Amino acid sequence: MTTNQKPLPPIWLAADGMTVKVIDQRRLPHELVILDLMNVDGIVAAIRDMVVRGAPLIGVTAAYGVYLALRSSSGDPDEEPLFKANCDRIRSARPTAVNLMWAVDEVAASVAAEMNPVNRIQAAEKAVQRIVAQETESCRRIGMHGVRLINDLAVAKNGKTVNILTHCNAGYLACVAHGTATAPIYAAVRAGVDVHVWVDETRPLNQGARLTAWELAQHGVAHTVVTDNAGGHLMQRGLVDLVLVGSDRTTRNGDVANKIGTYLKALAARDNRIPFYAALPSTTFDWCLDDGMQIPIEERDAQEVAHAAGFLENRIQQVRISPADSPSANPAFDVTPARLVTGLITERGICRASEADIRRLFPDLAAAEGAA
Amino acid sequence: MTTNQKPLPPIWLAADGMTVKVIDQRRLPHELVILDLMNVDGIVAAIRDMVVRGAPLIGVTAAYGVYLALRSSSGDPDEEPLFKANCDRIRSARPTAVNLMWAVDEVAASVAAEMNPVNRIQAAEKAVQRIVAQETESCRRIGMHGVRLINDLAVAKNGKTVNILTHCNAGYLACVAHGTATAPIYAAVRAGVDVHVWVDETRPLNQGARLTAWELAQHGVAHTVVTDNAGGHLMQRGLVDLVLVGSDRTTRNGDVANKIGTYLKALAARDNRIPFYAALPSTTFDWCLDDGMQIPIEERDAQEVAHAAGFLENRIQQVRISPADSPSANPAFDVTPARLVTGLITERGICRASEADIRRLFPDLAAAEGAA
Repeated sequence: MTTNQKPLPPIWLAADGMTVKVIDQRRLPHELVILDLMNVDGIVAAIRDMVVRGAPLIGVTAAYGVYLALRSSSGDPDEEPLFKANCDRIRSARPTAVNLMWAVDEVAASVAAEMNPVNRIQAAEKAVQRIVAQETESCRRIGMHGVRLINDLAVAKNGKTVNILTHCNAGYLACVAHGTATAPIYAAVRAGVDVHVWVDETRPLNQGARLTAWELAQHGVAHTVVTDNAGGHLMQRGLVDLVLVGSDRTTRNGDVANKIGTYLKALAARDNRIPFYAALPSTTFDWCLDDGMQIPIEERDAQEVAHAAGFLENRIQQVRISPADSPSANPAFDVTPARLVTGLITERGICRASEADIRRLFPDLAAAEGAA
Repeated sequence: MTTNQKPLPPIWLAADGMTVKVIDQRRLPHELVILDLMNVDGIVAAIRDMVVRGAPLIGVTAAYGVYLALRSSSGDPDEEPLFKANCDRIRSARPTAVNLMWAVDEVAASVAAEMNPVNRIQAAEKAVQRIVAQETESCRRIGMHGVRLINDLAVAKNGKTVNILTHCNAGYLACVAHGTATAPIYAAVRAGVDVHVWVDETRPLNQGARLTAWELAQHGVAHTVVTDNAGGHLMQRGLVDLVLVGSDRTTRNGDVANKIGTYLKALAARDNRIPFYAALPSTTFDWCLDDGMQIPIEERDAQEVAHAAGFLENRIQQVRISPADSPSANPAFDVTPARLVTGLITERGICRASEADIRRLFPDLAAAEGAA
């Protein structure tokens, strides 16, 4: 499979203004398939079934969903109850990433004061474009700030390869461009720093082995896929200089909810005195929650654990791993306590994972959400 | 698939005295296939390709290999160079489990002083039987000692379910009977304690999801399969009371080499104040090594990481997970430092993971190996 030099975006609005196009991320790297999402049902299914995933992209998809909901009622303000119900359906497609709720509220708020149907639709489209532009710019700036960490490590290692471990996919596929955890990596590679990425495969859905490996290859970044079990050993043997992950929700005290297994890598990083950073746009902050233990953790279908999906005989197939009568459990996220997080890489710079430091970078956010 | 009430042993010598029968553990739980190992080639391939696995069973298989090597030369002492070469081939089939080297040496030593070919073969067979009996009895006693930990937890929980997390398969399939980590679990269930086991799937070869789940089901033990990523989250939420694993090699200071990923669970156990025990027969002690960083860690075929094997359309098939051109790495073991190990459950009782405490339980072993 090849793509153009400029990577295909994971989501865009077709020229008809009525069709949202997305890469079906369940099928990468084996098949590059574009799906058309025409209505709220399609949006909700795409988020729930992980056609799209990653906190920023979930937010953008949800924003498009609100736009489609409005279009389906021709922007008629008398259809407000249906519109609200549709917004609620989108909001509850997945529970953990807070960007989903935030993006729905942003687009809904942009049309709240508007009564003219055409203006309402235009306002919604503009709100979506604003979110897309904001997430893109945030990721670019996360790269700009985060690249300094990698540069410093390269200098400390006298130009020897900087080894970065990442978990799941916090790449451009999880966002709109650049990615969160990958943004500093792409910036470092562009700047000529010698970087190698250890890619956790990230069971059960293997977003690392499938998506991160694929997009790093697209960008020409040296990488090696490992099982989720391997990271601690690699750190013990001095083969990891930095752990870089994303975040699905970040509470006011700096706790980070991210893909299940992130916490284990944070523990290993601390045990081996390796810096552990979460890269996140401020849209993942949940200022309403005191700490990560309050974050709802999605429990997904146990069949995802009992099976593994991959490529066989020119198509994607699923093999069953465990005995047919053995139950499985499938929590999708865990919480990395702030005490294990060396720092947060945000669009405004890097801060420690503490309420005071987050407040210092985001006084506006803290004030607004505290007042809400 | 059903088996008899009494589980099929993972290895036995056929009535002809010339064929070693083993369960092909690559195919469980989907297919129960018995392979015939007729010679040293077969023994080496079975160990290397993980038809048999688990430190105690690797040792027993190697012991049978030495016996077959001797038989193939009709016990002739003049064939000593070939016999030695065969022993060396068996010894180098896999690098990490020290039982392999120990068992080869035990059987070879039993025939060293014997010149009569028939007596040599008989002596070798007796040595193998002795090892089988010793490993079986060790596992039984590990169960007897370890069950007290589980009983104590059940009492502390007022009879509520005791949740035990285990990694990989340190079950009867890894031994000859009882298992190491599973021996206390089976003993507790027999004693009527309410036990539930969280089974780490244990990528890349999924010995947890395939083998531990299967043998727990055979024994009627409640269990749930989870990804290797999930254990930390389960511990954070109070869903794990005890972590019980095996060991492939234990150094004099109490460091434990076990299946890759064990270290991450030990870190999470410590972070959540959950007891972490390694259950091991004394044959896994390597008194010659000061600490775990000296243990050779096997690097297995990267294809194991790039693929997942499972059941599809009534047979075992492999799907490719990562992009065809993305490299993988596959370290098979990691080292859990003694400081993270609450205790070692051995055939002589439970001790702390420290040289002084191990010496106290095994003064003979320490003296013998120190002198060697």
